[in-house]
Amino acid sequence: MKEHTPLIVRALRNEVTERPPVWFMRQAGRYLPEYRELRSKHTFLQMCHTPELATEVTLQPLRRYPFDAGIIFSDILLPLESMGAELEYIPGTGPVIRNPVRTAADVRALKDFDPIRDLPAPMEAIRLTTAAADVPILGFAGAPFTMACYLIEGQGSRNWPETKRLMFGQPKLFDELLNRLADAVGDHLQAQIDAGAVGVQLFDTWAGVLGPADFQRWALPANRRALKRASGAPTMFFTKDSAPFLPWLRDIEADAYAVDWRVDIGAARKVLGDVPIQGNLDPQALHAPHDEIRRRVRSIIETAGPKGHIFNLGHGITPDIEPAAVEAAVEAVHAHRWS
Amino acid sequence: MKEHTPLIVRALRNEVTERPPVWFMRQAGRYLPEYRELRSKHTFLQMCHTPELATEVTLQPLRRYPFDAGIIFSDILLPLESMGAELEYIPGTGPVIRNPVRTAADVRALKDFDPIRDLPAPMEAIRLTTAAADVPILGFAGAPFTMACYLIEGQGSRNWPETKRLMFGQPKLFDELLNRLADAVGDHLQAQIDAGAVGVQLFDTWAGVLGPADFQRWALPANRRALKRASGAPTMFFTKDSAPFLPWLRDIEADAYAVDWRVDIGAARKVLGDVPIQGNLDPQALHAPHDEIRRRVRSIIETAGPKGHIFNLGHGITPDIEPAAVEAAVEAVHAHRWS
Repeated sequence: MKEHTPLIVRALRNEVTERPPVWFMRQAGRYLPEYRELRSKHTFLQMCHTPELATEVTLQPLRRYPFDAGIIFSDILLPLESMGAELEYIPGTGPVIRNPVRTAADVRALKDFDPIRDLPAPMEAIRLTTAAADVPILGFAGAPFTMACYLIEGQGSRNWPETKRLMFGQPKLFDELLNRLADAVGDHLQAQIDAGAVGVQLFDTWAGVLGPADFQRWALPANRRALKRASGAPTMFFTKDSAPFLPWLRDIEADAYAVDWRVDIGAARKVLGDVPIQGNLDPQALHAPHDEIRRRVRSIIETAGPKGHIFNLGHGITPDIEPAAVEAAVEAVHAHRWS
Repeated sequence: MKEHTPLIVRALRNEVTERPPVWFMRQAGRYLPEYRELRSKHTFLQMCHTPELATEVTLQPLRRYPFDAGIIFSDILLPLESMGAELEYIPGTGPVIRNPVRTAADVRALKDFDPIRDLPAPMEAIRLTTAAADVPILGFAGAPFTMACYLIEGQGSRNWPETKRLMFGQPKLFDELLNRLADAVGDHLQAQIDAGAVGVQLFDTWAGVLGPADFQRWALPANRRALKRASGAPTMFFTKDSAPFLPWLRDIEADAYAVDWRVDIGAARKVLGDVPIQGNLDPQALHAPHDEIRRRVRSIIETAGPKGHIFNLGHGITPDIEPAAVEAAVEAVHAHRWS
């Protein structure tokens, strides 16, 4: 790692930077041929649990593109395995939990999660990548509500009916589950910071299925509880469908907020106030001609302004994106100079 | 139909009503055993194209519940069939178009749509249901952007990559397609009004995948163009993911706006101003205990206020909802009285 303070650390401190630092959600992943090559030899869970493989995957995009940070290759659901979920990744379906949590007995049967004891691979991979990379490494975890969605439903869902049935029907039990998950997730973030992550992002991917009152009642306090357990590096909070929640998102008490692409980043800043913001190129805009990609990158940078902006997508890269499109976007960020 | 001015017509005129009128998106559908019974004997497209079957399905929920309006049983994609799409409904997958539109030649090969000539069934079903029901009947159509999504992608998608590739890469061609669809859809709405629909709703289900600038550039003017072709009855506009678009939604020039459940209906009113509003119970809240359903219904009514509010869900009923839950919700609306 270089000696000067890295650009992403400065932006996370809400400083003015000469250009925004840039990283992409899921920058280590299936859109890269070298990832697919490695993945063809190992299961997804093997890759997550083997520090050397997770390190290799984390470094792959850093060899191709001048990203200003790596994000550790891992998965938000891994702590659930340690807590007792029978987790599998099924091609075409995604994560499946064979023993979903539906009752008070199920919640109480969940084991406590100690990241050092139960899930050492991401921390070891953070140490290895930090030593190997020229840029700092970020850690992450799933937000309690999003983790609860998978744990209750047993797999991805459009409407998460079982989750909402439990939430609306047994609110105290749902609170208990969120608290258990918040503590697990918070400890996981802390362990990653202790291993050398210069920042950690909490992903509340599915919180957008909640109405505003339900977000404030459940997801928000669980997120705050998780983040309160993590200190020593800046915390970032992401939810898809950010727009409805912007007015009270800062009650989560993260250090920075990542917004999705369905909100103007300037309008989001006005609501959020003076706090670092991350985002927000439409991931599908990477299918556009490169000139259009560059135009959109510049527009986001101009709209976000020079202070505390981290350039990112509004959600993860999809596997169908051409690597050359990522290059066009990242280089457009690098080409920017606030005069 | 009763002699006095129906409650839904009064609310659509932005009048104060003693309680909000109530109807539910997809109130005629798979959650009803009598629908599944009829569906087991006919294909989905047969049911849409046979006025007597569409009439029966439209009337089914009106026999069970005191809804204040029927919504004609039909499907937003039917005009695409007439325009040349090889449309099929595949159980588990949903609508599939075998010959998706991807090129200028594909767009120009689309046939013009004349609803009277090409798609008479919904209008005939509106006449039959209007004669048979005690409450007025609503018509509907898919919004141009949402229709374009299916036409280009060929089936439902999470990210609509082909749609965005065409939109970003060939913006003039995309405009041309949206204009063709807007004219088709506008004529379809007008034909339904002429057949007796007391109001028509335009469904822009997928507009929420657009960033705000892209919504304003493409979906918004196409919606306005469609609605300009329809007169003689109030028009309603629905998009899932309403929150990001509220500040300029009224540029669409609909007579009423339906909002999804991820926005507080009082906050939405403040942004939209003095215009009829429809919504916005979380469809998955119908999995809640009935007391909780009633509490949520009351809260929405109180928040929306007595003027120009039409009670509805924030999106369609899902097939897994218990009919008794719908009854609890509808009766809670009926139990309300503005004093």
